[in-house]
Amino acid sequence: MRIGIGASSFAQEDPAPLRLLEAAGVTVVPNPYRRRMTEPEIMGYLVGDRLDGLLAGLEPLNRRVLEAARGSLKALARIGIGMANVDQEAAREMGIKVSSTPDGPTEAVAEATLAALLCLLRNLEPMNRALHQGEWPKSIGRSLAETTVLVVGFGRIGRRVAATLSSLGARILVCDPHLPADADGGGFPTVTLEQGLSVADAVTLHANGEKVILGREELARLPQGALILNSARGGLVDETALVEALESGRVGKAWLDAFWEEPYRGPLLKYPQVLLTPHAATYTRRCRLSMETEAARNLLRDLGLPVVA
Amino acid sequence: MRIGIGASSFAQEDPAPLRLLEAAGVTVVPNPYRRRMTEPEIMGYLVGDRLDGLLAGLEPLNRRVLEAARGSLKALARIGIGMANVDQEAAREMGIKVSSTPDGPTEAVAEATLAALLCLLRNLEPMNRALHQGEWPKSIGRSLAETTVLVVGFGRIGRRVAATLSSLGARILVCDPHLPADADGGGFPTVTLEQGLSVADAVTLHANGEKVILGREELARLPQGALILNSARGGLVDETALVEALESGRVGKAWLDAFWEEPYRGPLLKYPQVLLTPHAATYTRRCRLSMETEAARNLLRDLGLPVVA
Repeated sequence: MRIGIGASSFAQEDPAPLRLLEAAGVTVVPNPYRRRMTEPEIMGYLVGDRLDGLLAGLEPLNRRVLEAARGSLKALARIGIGMANVDQEAAREMGIKVSSTPDGPTEAVAEATLAALLCLLRNLEPMNRALHQGEWPKSIGRSLAETTVLVVGFGRIGRRVAATLSSLGARILVCDPHLPADADGGGFPTVTLEQGLSVADAVTLHANGEKVILGREELARLPQGALILNSARGGLVDETALVEALESGRVGKAWLDAFWEEPYRGPLLKYPQVLLTPHAATYTRRCRLSMETEAARNLLRDLGLPVVA
Repeated sequence: MRIGIGASSFAQEDPAPLRLLEAAGVTVVPNPYRRRMTEPEIMGYLVGDRLDGLLAGLEPLNRRVLEAARGSLKALARIGIGMANVDQEAAREMGIKVSSTPDGPTEAVAEATLAALLCLLRNLEPMNRALHQGEWPKSIGRSLAETTVLVVGFGRIGRRVAATLSSLGARILVCDPHLPADADGGGFPTVTLEQGLSVADAVTLHANGEKVILGREELARLPQGALILNSARGGLVDETALVEALESGRVGKAWLDAFWEEPYRGPLLKYPQVLLTPHAATYTRRCRLSMETEAARNLLRDLGLPVVA
């Protein structure tokens, strides 16, 4: 059996997941581009290399690609949680088994969110930049205990973020239209998006879907100087509206780890008050190892191969 | 009565502490330099303005200064915890009452330490810098759950840092020569400095005193690439030894909020892997307000004046 690896960083930090594949006797065909593949590239890779299985990153696995690989491709295992790049209905029709690693990213993404929020609240980045230039600008930050955080999306990651920030003293409000009306938000007050936005010092997105959650109208509801954090999906925020809100000061600072197009080289690069990270919220050794191992096991299982050790 | 204010940021964010002084009927003489005063400057301020009380920042209040102010100065109240800039014995001899705000900084300093540690572990600053320059460098960080943190100094702040990091999954080791031999370090393993350094992924200093804790010999015991965090006192780390350890990679990254001389413009400015903040670990609105209010109350009490509201 031949297995491809879409994710360019696979086994970079720890070879254990690769060993797991080798121990099962499969042939591993590495990603020849060492970056995220485009539609024609992944199509050529799957078909040209006659792959039986794919450890999938974020490359486009749409109907056209899956149809091209029909017959040879038997299973694909996402290393990660998001399935936006996989046409699951097409995969089902073509008998391609699909899996993901829904638990893997929770800890790393929640920690990255905490890191970014604290970094913004305490002005770490601008102070560090100024000191390295020989200045000494003392600026007053905010503690978590004086911060109201609106958590939008109350799945695994949203719940973990809410629990972590709350344990450190922040006031948490939860907004999730998919929560049953009588649900209590895990002990946190639940609000509508409109209610939450009007009182939030910071808004952190942990939602699914492709629909814009923060557009011009929504951002206008925020208190002046509010913080926006998005590690979920670029499309959840309207980029133009965010630029306008940064210009007006409605949004004081922001952290973006997910973008409309990646690698991102859009207008937000010009705003020093925006903390930018390259879709790296899951990038801890521990998280990568756990997700890669889980995905490798899922793939071997779906290919009917033995999982040794 | 006439009260001076050494700390240049006093009541900058919230006028409440200033109102407290005004309500007691004192005359407030603002710091004319709007920065930390030197020895001749504070001497001239205390004597020339015939101050009865001083809300003290980090300006030098040594024997010479206090002797010059003898007779007029009756009380000084530090806004903060450290007393390294106050000659307490000289103050006692001259009948000058001295107070501080030992509880005020705990939350803000522990939070700044968490912020800096996460920022370093997750490479936030270098990734942000690269993205703003149009690059897209994904680098693997570390989670707290795969990090062993040596907490040196187990007073109020050290205890809070240990509890916070531990609650987020870090492995904590405690080193404090002032702990009784049979003390259990609040549930955390206690180690000697030598033991702790040899296994620490990160070392965070929360100790008192002026003695160097991390010199050349101590830094050499660290695992390659270890992190150093110092928000306590500049003098606890040997600056030359730290530069050498950064050059050799023994110390991989560091956060410094306390320096040998402030404003700091020394050799560490050249190292992008060092996160620098301008002695701002206590700089949250909440912490400043709490410490300034406490110090103002202390000063009024020590001057025998009423504390209204």
